[in-house]
Amino acid sequence: MRGFFHPQSVAVVGVSPRAGNLGRNIVANLETFGFTGPVYYVSPRGGEYKGQTIHQDVRELEQVPELAVILTPAATVPEILESCGQKGIKRVIIESGGFSELDQGHGQLEAQIKDTAQRHGLRFIGPNCIGVICAQSGLAVPFPMLGQAVPKGGLSLICQSGGIGLTYLHRAAMEGLGIAKFASVGNKANVNEEDLLAYYLEDPDTQMVLLYLESIVDGRRMCELIRASDKPVVVHKSNIAHLSHGIAQSHTAALANDDLVVEEALAQCGALRAHTVNDCLTILKGLNMPRPKGRRLAVISRSGGHAVVAADAAYREGMELPPLPPSYLEPIQEAFRASVIKLQNPLDLGDLFHFELYVEILRGALAQDNVDGVVVVHGYRGPEVKPSRQFISQAGDLARQYDKPVALVLLTTAEEMDQARQLASLPIFDAPEEAIKALSMAQKAGGKAAKQGLGCAGAFDTARAERILATAGPDGGLELPEALHLIAAAGLPVAPFLVAGDPAEAAEAAQALGFPVALKAVGAHLSHKSDQGGVVLNLSDVQAVEEAAAKMMNELKPNRLVVMSMISGGQEVIVGAKRDHSFGPVVLVGLGGVTAEVLQDVRLGLAPLAGGEAGAMLDGLKGAALLKGFRGRPPASRPALVAAVNQVSNLISRLPQLRELDINPLLVGPGGVMAVDARASARPPKPQGH
Amino acid sequence: MRGFFHPQSVAVVGVSPRAGNLGRNIVANLETFGFTGPVYYVSPRGGEYKGQTIHQDVRELEQVPELAVILTPAATVPEILESCGQKGIKRVIIESGGFSELDQGHGQLEAQIKDTAQRHGLRFIGPNCIGVICAQSGLAVPFPMLGQAVPKGGLSLICQSGGIGLTYLHRAAMEGLGIAKFASVGNKANVNEEDLLAYYLEDPDTQMVLLYLESIVDGRRMCELIRASDKPVVVHKSNIAHLSHGIAQSHTAALANDDLVVEEALAQCGALRAHTVNDCLTILKGLNMPRPKGRRLAVISRSGGHAVVAADAAYREGMELPPLPPSYLEPIQEAFRASVIKLQNPLDLGDLFHFELYVEILRGALAQDNVDGVVVVHGYRGPEVKPSRQFISQAGDLARQYDKPVALVLLTTAEEMDQARQLASLPIFDAPEEAIKALSMAQKAGGKAAKQGLGCAGAFDTARAERILATAGPDGGLELPEALHLIAAAGLPVAPFLVAGDPAEAAEAAQALGFPVALKAVGAHLSHKSDQGGVVLNLSDVQAVEEAAAKMMNELKPNRLVVMSMISGGQEVIVGAKRDHSFGPVVLVGLGGVTAEVLQDVRLGLAPLAGGEAGAMLDGLKGAALLKGFRGRPPASRPALVAAVNQVSNLISRLPQLRELDINPLLVGPGGVMAVDARASARPPKPQGH
Repeated sequence: MRGFFHPQSVAVVGVSPRAGNLGRNIVANLETFGFTGPVYYVSPRGGEYKGQTIHQDVRELEQVPELAVILTPAATVPEILESCGQKGIKRVIIESGGFSELDQGHGQLEAQIKDTAQRHGLRFIGPNCIGVICAQSGLAVPFPMLGQAVPKGGLSLICQSGGIGLTYLHRAAMEGLGIAKFASVGNKANVNEEDLLAYYLEDPDTQMVLLYLESIVDGRRMCELIRASDKPVVVHKSNIAHLSHGIAQSHTAALANDDLVVEEALAQCGALRAHTVNDCLTILKGLNMPRPKGRRLAVISRSGGHAVVAADAAYREGMELPPLPPSYLEPIQEAFRASVIKLQNPLDLGDLFHFELYVEILRGALAQDNVDGVVVVHGYRGPEVKPSRQFISQAGDLARQYDKPVALVLLTTAEEMDQARQLASLPIFDAPEEAIKALSMAQKAGGKAAKQGLGCAGAFDTARAERILATAGPDGGLELPEALHLIAAAGLPVAPFLVAGDPAEAAEAAQALGFPVALKAVGAHLSHKSDQGGVVLNLSDVQAVEEAAAKMMNELKPNRLVVMSMISGGQEVIVGAKRDHSFGPVVLVGLGGVTAEVLQDVRLGLAPLAGGEAGAMLDGLKGAALLKGFRGRPPASRPALVAAVNQVSNLISRLPQLRELDINPLLVGPGGVMAVDARASARPPKPQGH
Repeated sequence: MRGFFHPQSVAVVGVSPRAGNLGRNIVANLETFGFTGPVYYVSPRGGEYKGQTIHQDVRELEQVPELAVILTPAATVPEILESCGQKGIKRVIIESGGFSELDQGHGQLEAQIKDTAQRHGLRFIGPNCIGVICAQSGLAVPFPMLGQAVPKGGLSLICQSGGIGLTYLHRAAMEGLGIAKFASVGNKANVNEEDLLAYYLEDPDTQMVLLYLESIVDGRRMCELIRASDKPVVVHKSNIAHLSHGIAQSHTAALANDDLVVEEALAQCGALRAHTVNDCLTILKGLNMPRPKGRRLAVISRSGGHAVVAADAAYREGMELPPLPPSYLEPIQEAFRASVIKLQNPLDLGDLFHFELYVEILRGALAQDNVDGVVVVHGYRGPEVKPSRQFISQAGDLARQYDKPVALVLLTTAEEMDQARQLASLPIFDAPEEAIKALSMAQKAGGKAAKQGLGCAGAFDTARAERILATAGPDGGLELPEALHLIAAAGLPVAPFLVAGDPAEAAEAAQALGFPVALKAVGAHLSHKSDQGGVVLNLSDVQAVEEAAAKMMNELKPNRLVVMSMISGGQEVIVGAKRDHSFGPVVLVGLGGVTAEVLQDVRLGLAPLAGGEAGAMLDGLKGAALLKGFRGRPPASRPALVAAVNQVSNLISRLPQLRELDINPLLVGPGGVMAVDARASARPPKPQGH
C-alpha cells in the first residue's frame, strides 16, 4: 500500500485547460500540500496546462509514474486503466463515479476494470472516491479543492464516502487533530478497507485510525487486524437503516441482524464504535491526550451546576469519582476561608477567584494516586481571559508532566476556545458530558486484551459431526434427531431421546426412557413444530403416548417421532451459531425464551471464542441476574454454561459445512446443562467447477 | 410573578465602591440591558457610587422600590430582608450564597428568611442564585457581568444553577435563539420553578420554556401546568447520580426510582426531556422553526455519505423518508442528464452544481403533500460561498412560505455558519443527526393531547377500601388477606381464597375451594414469603395441605394461612402504585416477573390516568409482544388488563391513606385478569398537632 501514499511521481489523467475541469484541482492540491515529485498531465484531448504538455496517453510518458490518478468519464476508464497496465504502472486511483454504485449495468464496467487490474498485476483504489492524502509526502489528490494543507499529526483515516471524509478532515482540523494519512475508498473494487487498515497499523506515522464505512468487506480480517495492534481504531459504521439481508432461517439468524454482529464483533476485538461524526470526534479527542490508566476521575468546576452535570455523566459512563483525601482538601479549605463551598469530588470552586490557586488545585488532583484523569470545567469571559489563558497553558503542561489526561471543558467564545486549544496543546470540550465520554472511551481503548488462547476444551468427535452434517436435506436442514446428535458429537449433554416410526414404537421408547416424556414430530415441513401441535409435553403413561403419537401421525404426517425424557427446572438459555458473510462464524447466547426472543437480550461473539470471552458474553446480558437464581430457583452452573457456549463455538469453527445452529432451549441447572431442542443446517454443496 | 420581571424601580443591596464588588455588576447589567426605571443603591457601609448616594438601609429610601436585589454575606441577609419587609417591598431577589446548599446549620438561616417573608407577605427568589433577566423591561440583575444584552425572542428559561443558566444564555445567543425571560431560582426557598412556570405559560412574550432543574419541588403541579398549555416545555433534569431516597419498601418502589418517575411523568404530560445542554439546544432549535405536522421528511444532500447518515438518523428517530413522486423527480432527472445520480429519498445531488436548481428542488420537496419537513445537507467553501448564501436565504423564505421546517445542515466554517443563520433566519445544524433529532422532537411537542377524561369506570367500594386500610399495622403494612380484599374492593378480580388458622382449617378451606390449591403464610415478618418457604404451590389433596400447613406453622410461625385456588396459565403482569414525594400518586405496570424485575421493563404514569393512557403504558413496554401470545400461549385480554391498570390508578387516587400497592403477579388470560398475590401499605397516621 505504501506506493499509494509515497509515490516518487504521479500522473493525473483528466487534466484539461477547460473551465470547470476538476483534474486541475488535483494538481492544485498537490501544490498546496507540497508534493515535490514530478506530476504528469494526461488527457485524451492533449493540449497544454501551466506550460506543461498534456499527454494524450500515459504510454507516451518518458518515465513510468509510480502512481496514476484517473478522473475521466466512467466509460473511458477501462481503456485508460489498460494503458496504465501496459505502461507498467502498479498503483492507480480511480476517482470517477458511474460504476456499481449506480446500477447493475454500470457494475459490468466495474467488473471490467477489476479484470484489467488482475491481468496487469496492478492495484487500484476506487472507483467513485476522492483519493488519498499523505501529510508526510505531500501527496494530496482529492478532486475537491482543499484550499490549505491539513495539520500534521497521528490520525489516519479510511472513508467510504468522500463527502464524509471531507467533513472529517475539516472537523479534525477545527479540533486540533493532526492528520497522517487519508484514503477515500469509494466502491472498494480492488483495494478495500482491510488492505489500508493493515498498512496504517504498520505505518510509523499513524498513531490512531478512524474508519467511516457503509459496508465492511472482510469483517473477520478487520477484527483480527485491530485485535493484533496496539493502536486505537475508531469505527463509524453507518448504513444500518436499509439492511435486510435475506430472510432469517432460524431464531439465531433473526436475532443476529447484521448491525448486531458489527457492534459485538468490534467490541470483542477492542475497536471503539461511533454512530455519528460528533461522537467520533469526541472519542478521537479523548485519544489525543495522555491515556487514563483507570476509570477514576476528579472533577473541578467553577459552577455547582456543571459539577452536578459532570457527576451525572460520570455515572452514565461508569466512571468513578473517588473521594479526595483530607491531605489534599484541607489546604484548599484554608484558601477558601472566606468562601462558601463544599469540598468533595466533584469539587465546586464556587467563589474562589485565585487563578494561581487553580493551578495548585489541579496539580494536587493529578498527584493523587486514586485519580486517573481530571475534568476541569471553566467558564470565563472578558477580564478573566488573561489569567484563564495562563491557567489553561499550565494545565497542558501539568497533563504532560503527570502523564494523565486533563479534559478542559471551556465555556467561553468560539474564538477563545481556538486560542485555548493552541495554548494547552490539549483537546477542548464544550460540555462536561463530552469530556467524560472522551475519557471513558480512551480508557477503554487501552483495554485491548491479547487473545488468550481458545476458550474450549472437551471431547469433540469431528468425524461423527461431519457424517451427521452430510445427512442434510437439499435445503441444508438437518432433522431434529440429527441436530441433537450433532451437538452431542461436540460434547454437549442432550436430554435422553429415542426415535420412533409409529405409536407402538413411541410407547416402547417411552417405557425404555421412563415417564414422563415429551413427544416431538420430525419433518422438514414441521420446522415450527410447537406452533403446529408437533410437540406434546408431560406424557405420563403408555396410553397417553400412544394416543398423542397416533394423533400427531394422523394430523401432521411426520417422517418420524422423537420421544424425549421430560427435563424440568433449570434456566432456559438459547445458544446458537451462524456464519456471517463478512465476519464469518458467530456464536450467540441469550437467556430464557422471553428475554432472548421478545426483548432481544442476546450477545454475540466471533468464533472461535478466546479464553474468558464466553463468560464475558454471559455477563453482558441484561438478564444475567437470572443465572444467579430467581424466585427461589437454584443458581445455574456457570462453568457448564460457559463450556456449552465454547462447544458451540468449536462446532461452527471446526465444521465449515455447518451453516447455522440453534439450541433452544438449553436448560441450565445447578448441576450442568442439557439441550432439549435444536435446529441445524448445512451449507448447500458447492456446484461443480467452482 | 410579574413584579419580578417588570418592576418600576429596583433597589440593589450590596453596592459598594470597593474593588471587586459584585453589586456593581448588577448595576452595569441593568444599564447594558436598558432598564429605564430608578435604581437605588444600598449598603450598610453607605458611601457614594457613580455620583449617587449609597443608602445604608432600604428603609431610608424615599420611594418604596418595587423590587429589591440582595447580594451581601449570608449572615446579613435576614436583617436586610426584615427591613425590606418593613419598608413594604413585596418582591426580593436574594443572590447571596451560604444557606441550605452548604449544610444544616446554614439551613437554619434559610428557615429564618422564609419566616420573615411569610410575616411580611413578600415573595423572594433564591437565595444562592443569579437573579432574573427580562428582555422586554430591560431588567437584568445577575451579578456576573453579562457584557451585552441578550437577543430578544420567545424563549424563557428557569435555571436552578446560575452557571448552567449562563451557559444556556451564551449558547442560545450563539445559536440565534432569542430570549424573553430568564430566572435563576437557586435554593427555591420561597418562589419555586412551578410558580415561575405558571407565569411563563401565561406570559405573552414567552413562546417556549426551558427548565434546568436539579430537583423538582412539585412535580404534579409542573405536569398539570405543562399539560394544560400549548407552549412547548423542555426540561433538562440532572442530578440523577446521587439519588437514594430511602430504602425501597416493595418491588414497585424499587423499580420506580425517582428518575424513572421524572422521565415518565414528563413524557405523559407532553414535556420534552433532555439530558444534556447540547440536547436541549438541539430541541430548542427544532422548536424555533415552523412545526412539522407529521413524521415524514425529505432529505436533500450534496454528499451520498451524508444522505446515508441522514437515513440512519431518521430510522433511529422513527421518522419516515417516504418515496417522492415521479412528477417531482422526473424534471430533476432531466436537469441531471449529464450526471451520475440515484433519485430517491434521501436525494443525493451528487455532481449537480446548479444553485438555482437547488432552490427549485427544495421548493418541489416542500410542495409535496407527503413531506412534513425537509433536511438539506449542504457542504460548501471558497468559491461556492456566494451562491450558497443566496440558496440559504431562499431556503428560509421557502420554509416560511410553505410553513414547513427546513433544517439546514451546513458543513462549512464556523463564521460562515453564523452568516447563514442570519441570512436564513432559521437554526443551523452541523450534523444531519442533530437536524433530524430536532425535527423529531419538535413534531412530538405538537402532539400534546388534551386530557381525555379519566380512563376508568367500574365498581369501587370506597368505604370498604377505607375500612380495610384502617387495619394496617404500625409500619403501615397490610397483611395478605387484607391486601387482596383491598384490590377486590376496587373491582379487581382476585383468585378465590380462604383464611385458615391451623392445618385442619386449611384442609377444610382447600376442600371448599377445590384442588389443587396454594398455601401462603401470613405475617408482617414474612414479607418475602416465597424466599422463606412461606408459599407452597400445587397441593392436590387434603393430606398434602395438612402436611404443608403443619410444616409452615411450625417453621415460620405465621399469624394466619391463606389457602388459594391454583390459577395457572396466563401472562404474568405486575401492576403497582406508589406515592411520589413530588409527583404524587403514580401507577406502574410491567410484564412478567422476569422482564419487570430483572430487566426493569416497566412503565409509569401519574394517577389518575386519563383515557388511553393505560393502553399507551402497555404499548410502551419493550416486552409488549408477550401480551399478544408467545410460544403457543393464547393472547392476553387487553381490555381486562387496561381496566385493571385503571382500577389501580383509581385506588391510589381515591385513597390518600394508601401509600403503596403491588399486585405481583396479576395473571392475564384471554378471558380476563386475576390477582394471585398482593402487598399494600398505608401511610402512618400523622402525629397529633401537625
